[in-house]
Amino acid sequence: MIAATPAPPYLAVIFSSQRTAGDRGYDAMAERMVDLAKTQPGFLGVESVRDAEGFGITVSYWKDEGSIAAWKAHAEHAVAQRLGRDQWYGAFRLRVCRVERESGQGGL
Amino acid sequence: MIAATPAPPYLAVIFSSQRTAGDRGYDAMAERMVDLAKTQPGFLGVESVRDAEGFGITVSYWKDEGSIAAWKAHAEHAVAQRLGRDQWYGAFRLRVCRVERESGQGGL
Repeated sequence: MIAATPAPPYLAVIFSSQRTAGDRGYDAMAERMVDLAKTQPGFLGVESVRDAEGFGITVSYWKDEGSIAAWKAHAEHAVAQRLGRDQWYGAFRLRVCRVERESGQGGL
Repeated sequence: MIAATPAPPYLAVIFSSQRTAGDRGYDAMAERMVDLAKTQPGFLGVESVRDAEGFGITVSYWKDEGSIAAWKAHAEHAVAQRLGRDQWYGAFRLRVCRVERESGQGGL
């Protein structure tokens, strides 16, 4: 579940969110968005975790700003973003970052 | 639980990890490290989540490279890092990033 990203530099989008109560189609859409993101140009990987209280962090990794912009503008993703803002998330924060270095062990 | 970080730029350390089975002192140390990190110069915030399968993402936010380096070198944190490498984590990845922009709604 740790993304096998290439050597830096590349970009990371850190999406931190608190879910509202009830599913209301969220789980199916979240799964669909991950599957769809994986097919996008410039996609490098994704890591995602949510706890039992509904707090989650999803980090997606991208080649460049163009690939992030294209994914943000994707029609199906735009629908999911609107539903997220209006229904699924009580709060969220999205941070776009440039990964400068990395280290670790195991699991890739 | 969403960190109320200042306006970018600032730095983010994305720590993705898979826990080994059994606690072996992990939970107490993890809580202590968060409490200790919060007292360090340049600390801006932290978000952390781990699921029932032991996969977790912790993102800590820092003012600059100097504050990250000082925290990495902190004596008590160095002990925790060694235990993490040797016992607590089956795999981990640490990525140091520069946050360039952010957006969101609610919860701050």
